[in-house]
Amino acid sequence: MAVIAVWKCDRDGSMFEDKKLADAHDKMLELAESITRLIEANVPGVSEADVETIGLLLAKRSDDLIKACKGKPEVLLANLDGDAEDESASNVTSLAG
Amino acid sequence: MAVIAVWKCDRDGSMFEDKKLADAHDKMLELAESITRLIEANVPGVSEADVETIGLLLAKRSDDLIKACKGKPEVLLANLDGDAEDESASNVTSLAG
Repeated sequence: MAVIAVWKCDRDGSMFEDKKLADAHDKMLELAESITRLIEANVPGVSEADVETIGLLLAKRSDDLIKACKGKPEVLLANLDGDAEDESASNVTSLAG
Repeated sequence: MAVIAVWKCDRDGSMFEDKKLADAHDKMLELAESITRLIEANVPGVSEADVETIGLLLAKRSDDLIKACKGKPEVLLANLDGDAEDESASNVTSLAG
């Protein structure tokens, strides 16, 4: 039987066979933690569970967050409003030449 | 008496004599709103007041948020940990040549 390297992210114990994926996941968790700590320090009323969920939510959307901060805040809302649109759009074939 | 142009940001009624500042403030509020709506849609347990405070907190730190998302999450925590350091650092004069 072969022995293969598996990469474990010690922040949450998740395992990856691809080191790049493991690194990206670790970076995302580190960003989530920083956002969580920033909010905790400034908005004490939020529960620990919620503030961690917010940190993860924003960290997972870091590419959109960058675009939003650079002047395109609507990208953060695309999935919120676009859910219905995306579905209908997908079965509409454009006839435009 | 002279008549001068004052720029009012209709999102929160704040007034600016400088149009650029008014535009920047409006953009910041728009970003805050988008972040708030994203969190509201995904983390229902947070109060409206807290989720707005979080949106404003992050929007006001948009430059740091971009850096954090690009791989320097620690910039978000600088003011949190650095408060004590900053004070002591300010009255320490470096003798290094």
